[in-house]
Amino acid sequence: MKRKIRMGMVGGGPGAFIGDVHRMAARLDGMIELVCGAFSSHPDKNRAAGNSLFLPESRCYDTFEEMFEKEKSLPEGERMDFVSITTPNHLHAPIALKALQNGFHVVCEKPMTLTVEEAEALAAEVERSGLLFCLTHNYTAYPMIRTAGQMIRAGELGSIRRIMVEYPQGWLADAVTPDNIQGSWRTNPVTSGVSCCMGDIGSHSENLAEFITGLKISELCANIKSFVPGRLLDDDGDVLLKFDNGAIGSLSASQIAVGEENALKIRVYGTKAAIEWNQQTPESLVIKYNDRPMQIMRRNWAGAGGRWSRLPAGHPEGFIEAFGNLYRDMALAIDARMQGVEYKTEFPTVHDGLRGVRFIHAVVASKGQWIKL
Amino acid sequence: MKRKIRMGMVGGGPGAFIGDVHRMAARLDGMIELVCGAFSSHPDKNRAAGNSLFLPESRCYDTFEEMFEKEKSLPEGERMDFVSITTPNHLHAPIALKALQNGFHVVCEKPMTLTVEEAEALAAEVERSGLLFCLTHNYTAYPMIRTAGQMIRAGELGSIRRIMVEYPQGWLADAVTPDNIQGSWRTNPVTSGVSCCMGDIGSHSENLAEFITGLKISELCANIKSFVPGRLLDDDGDVLLKFDNGAIGSLSASQIAVGEENALKIRVYGTKAAIEWNQQTPESLVIKYNDRPMQIMRRNWAGAGGRWSRLPAGHPEGFIEAFGNLYRDMALAIDARMQGVEYKTEFPTVHDGLRGVRFIHAVVASKGQWIKL
Amino acid sequence: MKRKIRMGMVGGGPGAFIGDVHRMAARLDGMIELVCGAFSSHPDKNRAAGNSLFLPESRCYDTFEEMFEKEKSLPEGERMDFVSITTPNHLHAPIALKALQNGFHVVCEKPMTLTVEEAEALAAEVERSGLLFCLTHNYTAYPMIRTAGQMIRAGELGSIRRIMVEYPQGWLADAVTPDNIQGSWRTNPVTSGVSCCMGDIGSHSENLAEFITGLKISELCANIKSFVPGRLLDDDGDVLLKFDNGAIGSLSASQIAVGEENALKIRVYGTKAAIEWNQQTPESLVIKYNDRPMQIMRRNWAGAGGRWSRLPAGHPEGFIEAFGNLYRDMALAIDARMQGVEYKTEFPTVHDGLRGVRFIHAVVASKGQWIKL
Amino acid sequence: MKRKIRMGMVGGGPGAFIGDVHRMAARLDGMIELVCGAFSSHPDKNRAAGNSLFLPESRCYDTFEEMFEKEKSLPEGERMDFVSITTPNHLHAPIALKALQNGFHVVCEKPMTLTVEEAEALAAEVERSGLLFCLTHNYTAYPMIRTAGQMIRAGELGSIRRIMVEYPQGWLADAVTPDNIQGSWRTNPVTSGVSCCMGDIGSHSENLAEFITGLKISELCANIKSFVPGRLLDDDGDVLLKFDNGAIGSLSASQIAVGEENALKIRVYGTKAAIEWNQQTPESLVIKYNDRPMQIMRRNWAGAGGRWSRLPAGHPEGFIEAFGNLYRDMALAIDARMQGVEYKTEFPTVHDGLRGVRFIHAVVASKGQWIKL
Repeated sequence: MKRKIRMGMVGGGPGAFIGDVHRMAARLDGMIELVCGAFSSHPDKNRAAGNSLFLPESRCYDTFEEMFEKEKSLPEGERMDFVSITTPNHLHAPIALKALQNGFHVVCEKPMTLTVEEAEALAAEVERSGLLFCLTHNYTAYPMIRTAGQMIRAGELGSIRRIMVEYPQGWLADAVTPDNIQGSWRTNPVTSGVSCCMGDIGSHSENLAEFITGLKISELCANIKSFVPGRLLDDDGDVLLKFDNGAIGSLSASQIAVGEENALKIRVYGTKAAIEWNQQTPESLVIKYNDRPMQIMRRNWAGAGGRWSRLPAGHPEGFIEAFGNLYRDMALAIDARMQGVEYKTEFPTVHDGLRGVRFIHAVVASKGQWIKL
Repeated sequence: MKRKIRMGMVGGGPGAFIGDVHRMAARLDGMIELVCGAFSSHPDKNRAAGNSLFLPESRCYDTFEEMFEKEKSLPEGERMDFVSITTPNHLHAPIALKALQNGFHVVCEKPMTLTVEEAEALAAEVERSGLLFCLTHNYTAYPMIRTAGQMIRAGELGSIRRIMVEYPQGWLADAVTPDNIQGSWRTNPVTSGVSCCMGDIGSHSENLAEFITGLKISELCANIKSFVPGRLLDDDGDVLLKFDNGAIGSLSASQIAVGEENALKIRVYGTKAAIEWNQQTPESLVIKYNDRPMQIMRRNWAGAGGRWSRLPAGHPEGFIEAFGNLYRDMALAIDARMQGVEYKTEFPTVHDGLRGVRFIHAVVASKGQWIKL
Repeated sequence: MKRKIRMGMVGGGPGAFIGDVHRMAARLDGMIELVCGAFSSHPDKNRAAGNSLFLPESRCYDTFEEMFEKEKSLPEGERMDFVSITTPNHLHAPIALKALQNGFHVVCEKPMTLTVEEAEALAAEVERSGLLFCLTHNYTAYPMIRTAGQMIRAGELGSIRRIMVEYPQGWLADAVTPDNIQGSWRTNPVTSGVSCCMGDIGSHSENLAEFITGLKISELCANIKSFVPGRLLDDDGDVLLKFDNGAIGSLSASQIAVGEENALKIRVYGTKAAIEWNQQTPESLVIKYNDRPMQIMRRNWAGAGGRWSRLPAGHPEGFIEAFGNLYRDMALAIDARMQGVEYKTEFPTVHDGLRGVRFIHAVVASKGQWIKL
Repeated sequence: MKRKIRMGMVGGGPGAFIGDVHRMAARLDGMIELVCGAFSSHPDKNRAAGNSLFLPESRCYDTFEEMFEKEKSLPEGERMDFVSITTPNHLHAPIALKALQNGFHVVCEKPMTLTVEEAEALAAEVERSGLLFCLTHNYTAYPMIRTAGQMIRAGELGSIRRIMVEYPQGWLADAVTPDNIQGSWRTNPVTSGVSCCMGDIGSHSENLAEFITGLKISELCANIKSFVPGRLLDDDGDVLLKFDNGAIGSLSASQIAVGEENALKIRVYGTKAAIEWNQQTPESLVIKYNDRPMQIMRRNWAGAGGRWSRLPAGHPEGFIEAFGNLYRDMALAIDARMQGVEYKTEFPTVHDGLRGVRFIHAVVASKGQWIKL
């Protein structure tokens, strides 16, 4: 690389969760430098965030519009190269659109937009602009998930028949108090969109199932529910799935599954072998056979996951390192563009984002009936 | 106990699987003695079975009708006290009915009957006769399942919201060859009934979910499929569930889940706590909380499961011991009747069997639509 | 088999633990019938045991001497074929010697005797009499241990370099109250011998290490300790090991390891591969490689452990089933003798017992110095 | 914090492993900036490293002496605040001494020095200078280890009786080829010191055992061995331990344990409870009791480990994050000094380093006999 890639950030002010994760992930490999931000719509919080991140006041902007405007006017190599959008859901679309229109590459949180129309418009803008757009479906970037995807696409499981994906959490089992910032905006239709549980973690599950298998969900039938009294959006649900190759399966997501942390788990069964992976033990990929002992593939052992690893096997990597793979990919892609060389990105794209928004809307529209996706 | 309880058996001849399990389970506690049998419709196999079990030829009967007839004429204390029915599904109903009509208590394999009508008739006959009827939904007899059931009914989980049960197997992933006796009759509608996968292991899942929670499935929506070419019955499927208290959840069962053994697993989430249990690690019951560390309750440790245990914690008990709990329960119940004392059985009954048959038929009838149970 | 094999039992009266296990194990396969016993030195308890086991009073003997005397005079096919000795340690030697002298095969609990001299005398008597002698180091009879032993002896691990075996328990962490029958005799030098912890479970560890590898401990250095005030025998300790092929390793055993059940675990590292097995998850055998993913071999899956199995993979077998393998082996061996055919036993022998007693005495004599075994 | 803390690095050039880890750990929280380095004694490699890290050529020094000299002359806020030493073992002492003499705080890899004399000299220089010295026994910085240490020191385990620590690796099971840079210097007495296995990972085990319990090893008896032909240093061994409070236990370390990654595991048994932790599953801390179910404490769940966490429970943190806790601690400590406020560091110190070197030398000197530490 010629130089560090320069990042701006929208969102991620005090009290946010995912903004910090993005920053740690961006720092990890020393390829990216945070140069500016519009961290909060509260000017005080925005300045506080900028200070704690050692940014000069001049590059701590009151609004994303101002940021894009002013950064655009800075010389290349000084201005930001890309923006990272870590706001609540309803702001993803306007910010991302504006960023692209101003010539900035985008890293954007999921779900990509509130509506299918917004998602389509964003996809069109990415196409038009030719800029890079990375949607942070970060689970796809775990080394053993990448290895699993390679195995499946190479036919090592045979023809896929059954896919089971689940994402149980327990953190919204009770009514949300106002100081729970994360819970408050996620359970609010204005900021979260038509769905809470399926939008937040159901969409991760859908994305992972399609990413790892290369298949598409063709039809679904969903039973979603809001358990906590007064809650306006779903906090729990199950979905029957049909895939475009004839495989079937299920997707379950819950935010009221008491005692569960972030137990995203996926199982894929083919005619020859099966795989199982759990986000809480991400360093292992279980391969099962009918005619042989099961194997536990481990990151950076016997070649597995090595290309996406940073450490020897047995020294645990985790969430930040996986997230960091998205940022590294983005940094390398921007660098390649600057140097005019070919580079094939591996991060989820605007098309994954569009698909995710369609999935969320189909789940909500299903009301217990089958619906095509 | 005054004397050993005397058992006859129908089915369980050479090549059978579950007959052997019943015999080991019946022997385990030294309370039950096998005194007669009609093990196979092939006279040679029947004699061979009788010989290997050290039975006199005179009590190795060609047919179950003959067995019931002749045993009935023997004096009490010599004749069999109960019959254990371990044949393919289609024979359960006629044998059980005949046994009850001849005054014998019954232990019967599941699914109880092929049709709902048969199941209702059998339930009526049990009521009429006042005899004991134990359906071998053996998973309900694992010590930690019994403990889980007690906890849930005592309110330790709060109000139940989500139930997830699954039973993946891989043994029928390919077409069945004729020498696969178990596979052959299970995939044949004549001997197996309207369903293979949901009848064989879906019904175990349904039963376990209702047993452990005390709730009833009120409505379901099923997506079942037959993956292996030429197979006439389902070998895979998922079911959306609604329970009578408002809880929701899912049930998945598969016989084409390559690499899976008998991974029956149940999770129940309440407002206060959750439990998780897996048949392949049956000695542990995981209890999860939002506000406390999770606990691993272990059989015969700190009181858990102790009443249904035979060994100290850490000396593994398993499938046979759980199955043996059903037989011990039956033996103690018969002994109590002989002695004229009260005894409260804990084994699954003809009503569980009727419910299971209704479940199987509802799943098959659903065809992707919601159906009341 | 021609007929059931007939078993007598010494020990195993009310309050005993291991006697019940022996009886369940002996019953499991329907090959063995309990025909007589001297269960307790208390006549009342003895009768009570006999009654609960449905034995006639005439075959419930006051002493083992009487039992051997009277049984010897019964006709073959009526008299007992072998005796099972499940008393506290100090009685093993006199009972076993007397049984052999009276022509009965023997199944005997471990440690085999209190002293090396007794052990040598017993070994000589077994040689002289030509009778069968099975020492119940039951852990050697787990299917996956048998499979591990085969693999190691077939060279699949390469040359063995490191062996780690441990057996932590917590049940004697506090002073023993008189109603704790198991704890009372085990902590009493009169009934237990020179060691408690190393005698009871250290000897299982030593036996398993030598059984599974075929190697012999050539030298050891032990650090044992009695933690509970007033306790006369060791309740905890570690031993450095050297094996006859140059391998090294360690053995740890504890009865004060609070929270531990019966976590016997063995790991063997060779030049090519390693194995790991834990008694509390006995259905799995982990195989590790430097150049390949680790494998989890499972009982009755892809051939592993199948010969010593009773159930399909995933239907858990456990402690009783493993113990039952010793009894089945004994029954088949006695039957083979009756029929005059060859039969190769797989159970631990009097020589394993002698070696175990030598190990216990070496550990106690070591006092932190190296001692040859 | 007023400004980012400025780091220089010695070692960590191309082909090194741990240098990269230090840099990722230092970057993670955005508090530390790498400003200079002497990464390799090969000038070309040194420049290459500097370039890839985006350092100006002027601050990429040929030698550590030059680095200290030149940096010292820069103004505060521009010059480095501390140096991170990630060279092979033999260089730790001279570099660290020189750094301290030039007024720089030090982060230093372990084992701290080759000899006890060097270690004592370094400890004296730290005392004399009053500068900060952090030894990267990084395992002590895992959140659940910190929680375990708090629990033990608060008496929640009661009085400690047994400590078992082990660190098996398999990566040196075969002879090292020259391109294996890590293996080459570690097996070379000139660069590694008197021990390979016990120096590299035995010392981590010793440190963790003492850190977590607050106890000191008072006496040890070691059996170490070099298995690979031609290897000059130990690659495997076991150590019997006595602690200053009367507890006993064992320490095993191996680099020839085929199939093992970095399976550092510690168990501590007290009179009331026990803990178990494994580096490969670092997010869980198992607490065991005799009279209650075991608990699995999880990072950032119900308060455990939260203070040292960056992510919600269930989003795995790992090795880099733990390492990052040492760097964050150092950064906060330097900042506190700059601001003149009190700050209590939690990182391992020069005294831990001295103790580690003494441990290594005692193990090597033991030759199977007890030796005081």
